[in-house]
Amino acid sequence: MFYINEGFLDLHSNYLFVTVANKIKEFQVKHPDQKVIKLGIGDVTRPLAPVVIEAMHKAVDDLSKTETFRGYGPESGYDFLKEKIVEFDYKGLGITKEEVFLSDGAKSDCGNIIDLFGENLKVAIMDPVYPSYLDANVEAGRGGKYDEVTGKYEKVIYMPISIQNHFVPELPEEVPDVIYLCFPNNPTGTVLTKEQLKKFVDYAKENKALILFDAAYEAFIQDENIPHSIYEVEGAKEVAIEFRSFSKTAGFTGVRCGFCTIPKAVCGYTRDGRKIELNPLWNRRIAAKFNGASYISQRGAEAIYTEEGQRQIQENLEYYRENARIMIEGLRAAGFAVEGGQNSPYVWFKVPEGMTSWEFFDVLLEKANVAGTPGSGFGPSGEGYFRLTSFGTRENTIEAMKRIREKFC
Amino acid sequence: MFYINEGFLDLHSNYLFVTVANKIKEFQVKHPDQKVIKLGIGDVTRPLAPVVIEAMHKAVDDLSKTETFRGYGPESGYDFLKEKIVEFDYKGLGITKEEVFLSDGAKSDCGNIIDLFGENLKVAIMDPVYPSYLDANVEAGRGGKYDEVTGKYEKVIYMPISIQNHFVPELPEEVPDVIYLCFPNNPTGTVLTKEQLKKFVDYAKENKALILFDAAYEAFIQDENIPHSIYEVEGAKEVAIEFRSFSKTAGFTGVRCGFCTIPKAVCGYTRDGRKIELNPLWNRRIAAKFNGASYISQRGAEAIYTEEGQRQIQENLEYYRENARIMIEGLRAAGFAVEGGQNSPYVWFKVPEGMTSWEFFDVLLEKANVAGTPGSGFGPSGEGYFRLTSFGTRENTIEAMKRIREKFC
Repeated sequence: MFYINEGFLDLHSNYLFVTVANKIKEFQVKHPDQKVIKLGIGDVTRPLAPVVIEAMHKAVDDLSKTETFRGYGPESGYDFLKEKIVEFDYKGLGITKEEVFLSDGAKSDCGNIIDLFGENLKVAIMDPVYPSYLDANVEAGRGGKYDEVTGKYEKVIYMPISIQNHFVPELPEEVPDVIYLCFPNNPTGTVLTKEQLKKFVDYAKENKALILFDAAYEAFIQDENIPHSIYEVEGAKEVAIEFRSFSKTAGFTGVRCGFCTIPKAVCGYTRDGRKIELNPLWNRRIAAKFNGASYISQRGAEAIYTEEGQRQIQENLEYYRENARIMIEGLRAAGFAVEGGQNSPYVWFKVPEGMTSWEFFDVLLEKANVAGTPGSGFGPSGEGYFRLTSFGTRENTIEAMKRIREKFC
Repeated sequence: MFYINEGFLDLHSNYLFVTVANKIKEFQVKHPDQKVIKLGIGDVTRPLAPVVIEAMHKAVDDLSKTETFRGYGPESGYDFLKEKIVEFDYKGLGITKEEVFLSDGAKSDCGNIIDLFGENLKVAIMDPVYPSYLDANVEAGRGGKYDEVTGKYEKVIYMPISIQNHFVPELPEEVPDVIYLCFPNNPTGTVLTKEQLKKFVDYAKENKALILFDAAYEAFIQDENIPHSIYEVEGAKEVAIEFRSFSKTAGFTGVRCGFCTIPKAVCGYTRDGRKIELNPLWNRRIAAKFNGASYISQRGAEAIYTEEGQRQIQENLEYYRENARIMIEGLRAAGFAVEGGQNSPYVWFKVPEGMTSWEFFDVLLEKANVAGTPGSGFGPSGEGYFRLTSFGTRENTIEAMKRIREKFC
């Protein structure tokens, strides 16, 4: 008899962004003449850099001729791309290409990495945070029952960040086996210094825990003292797996390419106390369950790793950064207390007193025809907050701020 | 403390094709002047059809302009492609586009589907068979201990196919919860009729088991009475998930696109006896752990679904079919008993008396400089057999047969 994985039944709601999209769709059906500006889902809107377009055309041409045709690539990705990643993204950090695994994106990696987890592991997540980590763990049976009152799953350890702790998570009281960290943080747009991250690295070493570090937004970092990689922190190469993505860095949300880095020194344990390297386990996982990222996507990603490529992707990033500045200014002018936006494409702000995040979602959509993402969708500590993204067009960003100032001032 | 999933430690060997590739590499290092013809891994060699190339160039161009740029697509794939699949691949079978889920390939789907499995399910696989199903299940702890003598994992139910049963698997004695079927079969190249498949569908219904039907090679079917889809069999829409791929159909091994079909009527059960549809569970799984196949790959796949597209992919398929004919003829002329190759790109033959599959692998590589895949790598009942693929170039295929005739006649 085919019994299902009942972890799926523990999920208390739809995937956040599906719910947001459905609500917008409903609104538009009711109000077909109102132009909704969507600053909810963190999806890019700028066209790809010319170097990427050129490289992908060339890759398509490669596939059109017998002499240059490529079939299955290595499951972990082509060396031509790994070598660039090591050279550019991990310069001076001692990461080797055997520690880098290309994939179809960071969401897949963050979810699939769970295949390496032993049973009954305790998982700690930041609160609020990108919902995919939590959902994937609940599906795998590591969530337990959802409590409607607290908004928490019983087995999960939450590390709240809010104005109270200046958005710096404290070490959890109950010791977890796995710690998900996401910096620059989605959704709050806040960052940690090297010293603040070091506390977590030391804590993980002490407790033989594993850190899963999502650095999908590192390209947005502007402050010089903020680390782009967790491997800038001493000791991290023994306890941390890092996730990166070309989605936000180079606009690859539709192209699909990302990578995770598993240093050889990162280990887990067997119940009888043996120490096992995770890097070969992941190699074994992808050999059985993955066949590599698209050749065309990998060639596109390779193209950003030249002087000209770096210049071109910075143009798009600068466009989004300027949007973020416009939003911070606009929201502050409208009286909102704003976080993020400085080292991140996300701005995070308090909703008006007495309103829940979802109530504000509805009001904002109805009054200003602007769609965002309710903070509570990212975790109970996100209640009372709201996220807007800087990935819209300049015109829409300006117009959205104008509407918000008009309706909420 | 981070405990690993010890299922990985149950794996008794490397992924088959990694081992094969490593052995060839070793040989080439030792004999740099000998030209090895690789007919081992089932990877295509023909360039993509012109319609696909054109469509992918256009898709790349779409991403170069703001007006036509696409970011995140639907996790389950674009309607433009799903509609074609329903129209062409499932014509008259009543499958709807909501039942089709695009992905980065069938290997990913066949592995990831395990996320839906409850604990302690009994899995039945054909023997021999594509090793990915088995490896993914062993990693998930459903294999148990490997027995060096029998070549079997203790918890897995094996359904042997060999010359004794004319490569038609019998219903297993011990009732499984999940049944993996792969037809046209990889590695034997054999097929089942509708009536033979019906026995499995009826058996699954009777036992509330789930059938996972891998139809990655359906495009190679030439006999008119052989079903291309399991949904041609009455009742299958209640018990079977089907996996398809553009890899072999249209040469997409490097492009990455495939799909799985989960009809709404396919259900699993909770331990307390509730019936749960699998289609929404899979939707929830991909929302948390996947972000859609590449837009470019999906546009490429769409292009094969026109009269001209179908004609062009048939040209490549015919090229491989002709290779298979050359191989069947060549191997028979050299005195081998050959199966498959008629509705499949694979030919499967008995190795010389008294030799194991791996021994023949070495002899073939050393004497004829031809690399294939040892049958025992696909399961214990594959011992004494060998697989060659028709995906090589015409020239290499002819040359390989010439060498085999010279060395083994």
